[in-house]
Amino acid sequence: MTAWMKNGGPDSDIVLSSRVRLARNLAHTQFPQRLEGDQGKAVMNQIAQAVETLKPGWQLQWQPLSEVSAIDRQVLVEKHLASPALVQDPVRFEGVVIDPTETVSLMVNEEDHLRLQVFLSGLQLNEAWQLANRLDDELERVLDFSYDANFGYLTACPTNLGTGLRASVMVHLPALVLTRHVPQLFTALAQIGVVVRGLYGEGSDVAGNIFQISNQVSLGFSEEEFIHNLTVVAEQIVGRERNARYLLTQSHALELADRVGRAWGVLTHARIISSEEALRLLSDVKLGEDLGLLTVPGKASFSELALMTRSGYLMKEAGRELSPGERDELRASILQKNLLAHDEGEQ
Amino acid sequence: MTAWMKNGGPDSDIVLSSRVRLARNLAHTQFPQRLEGDQGKAVMNQIAQAVETLKPGWQLQWQPLSEVSAIDRQVLVEKHLASPALVQDPVRFEGVVIDPTETVSLMVNEEDHLRLQVFLSGLQLNEAWQLANRLDDELERVLDFSYDANFGYLTACPTNLGTGLRASVMVHLPALVLTRHVPQLFTALAQIGVVVRGLYGEGSDVAGNIFQISNQVSLGFSEEEFIHNLTVVAEQIVGRERNARYLLTQSHALELADRVGRAWGVLTHARIISSEEALRLLSDVKLGEDLGLLTVPGKASFSELALMTRSGYLMKEAGRELSPGERDELRASILQKNLLAHDEGEQ
Repeated sequence: MTAWMKNGGPDSDIVLSSRVRLARNLAHTQFPQRLEGDQGKAVMNQIAQAVETLKPGWQLQWQPLSEVSAIDRQVLVEKHLASPALVQDPVRFEGVVIDPTETVSLMVNEEDHLRLQVFLSGLQLNEAWQLANRLDDELERVLDFSYDANFGYLTACPTNLGTGLRASVMVHLPALVLTRHVPQLFTALAQIGVVVRGLYGEGSDVAGNIFQISNQVSLGFSEEEFIHNLTVVAEQIVGRERNARYLLTQSHALELADRVGRAWGVLTHARIISSEEALRLLSDVKLGEDLGLLTVPGKASFSELALMTRSGYLMKEAGRELSPGERDELRASILQKNLLAHDEGEQ
Repeated sequence: MTAWMKNGGPDSDIVLSSRVRLARNLAHTQFPQRLEGDQGKAVMNQIAQAVETLKPGWQLQWQPLSEVSAIDRQVLVEKHLASPALVQDPVRFEGVVIDPTETVSLMVNEEDHLRLQVFLSGLQLNEAWQLANRLDDELERVLDFSYDANFGYLTACPTNLGTGLRASVMVHLPALVLTRHVPQLFTALAQIGVVVRGLYGEGSDVAGNIFQISNQVSLGFSEEEFIHNLTVVAEQIVGRERNARYLLTQSHALELADRVGRAWGVLTHARIISSEEALRLLSDVKLGEDLGLLTVPGKASFSELALMTRSGYLMKEAGRELSPGERDELRASILQKNLLAHDEGEQ
């Protein structure tokens, strides 16, 4: 299972996870979109060989996407281990490289030749950066990355130029949403170069009050400065969300308890539930748990429960394609089992 | 407590209660609206004395409405033991006469001098009529009722002329509502002189899928014919509702289980609930219970639970006036206690 989806890490009541991603490209080689003939395969082989030279601790395993089933590819996207673009119609030389805990992952021949990614639970941007940096250094010993003295690392899209770094945190902000402080906050963030998106990247709806906060550009500062700045921003957001929660418990304690109770009641009794409704109610239940208004017997974290609402995960569980109606039914039953389970399979 | 609100009687899964009401007026006396000076008091005294001459079994107790608190008057309306018009601004000579089980009740100086009413649980129109008829006979031995050889009993409103009888059944028709068969059914009923209203009489919304079905006129047939005809209509409605339920369980079993589960989940976990929402959800839970989809641990009947959603009942429980917000909170907690209670106070 995905380690970073487990509860844990600093401020994990609000910061679900921290992610650091580095974009790298091989020198003297066209960007993936321009690759022709066997060039893509050559890139893939170079990277695969480099991964094999890594110290034993990394345990990274190569998965050519053309050999991964459509359902499993969808699950990779839902776990944020691959991008929708990469898994859409995979060709022979596209792939992912993932360690067993799914903390470290590489996408090969997506927009860039290599995208190296580290996920950790809670607010651990610096720790994620250290890990990514260490892996990047090891890979760079055997791979010649495209680098310009002026621009830094060269990337297919100019927004990734420079450090090639994108740092982001996934935050749960139900109280800021309830008190309608989100638009104002996000406008302020945009002015300091911080981007806010929904759970599944650009253009996706902000379901479950889960927001992805990241740096907009990767040029003009050092990696450490980007990481430090985003950490400070995340800490400020955490402070504001905590404050909004406190004010809500003071001014609307009963309404909050009602909302949380209803969400729990529906989640544990519905027989059909859409992903959107499920995520909305899970958000309310998590808020209730964080505020001590209810205790969820099940052991699954909010991130894990959110994953369980997704189509790919459900089809993987069922072992086959499912119609939307079948998914809504399975989703309700899986969520119920995981919310109510009393130490199933634990010592 | 109100005996007819308990579950029981024939077809009580669908027919909540049967009611027979007789309108009577004293001869040589103006109708209540025209009474002046001490005339109202004189009517009241005549009726009170007549009640005292009744055989011991009736146990009817006189309650002058001017001595009943506003909250208790509202509860009388919610229990269908008095009309809203009667309790609005009661003057000294208006009152109700009720037996301890609240099966038999009399309204004095409402639209007519005397309105005699019998409530029984389930489909028991004939039994209710027999009881009403017996009481009417006993009263008529000492009271001189206004009667015309052509028109029968004379009443303040011409729609009650003749027998003075209004028979009605309270029916729960969730499946006919869900399958949208209600408008068609009610159009057909109107053509045979049967009126359909919501839970609280004319003009009230049809909350909780509870309908009151009654004869439109009281002239032109004998009491026994009216009772027989409405019983046949009620049996037909019961048949149609059962059929609609069967078809629903065949075609929409999962959707039904979902609806019932959600209703139960919300009712047992909400902390704030409006009367409208509560009645709607209670209707779903009753349907679920009738179809064997869930077992409600609490002992309260649907009619009793419906009464518990009402403002007057809640204020009576609280022992004081309540704001709408306070009512919504108390309603949620009282319903929860009564739905979940495991044999509280029972042997």
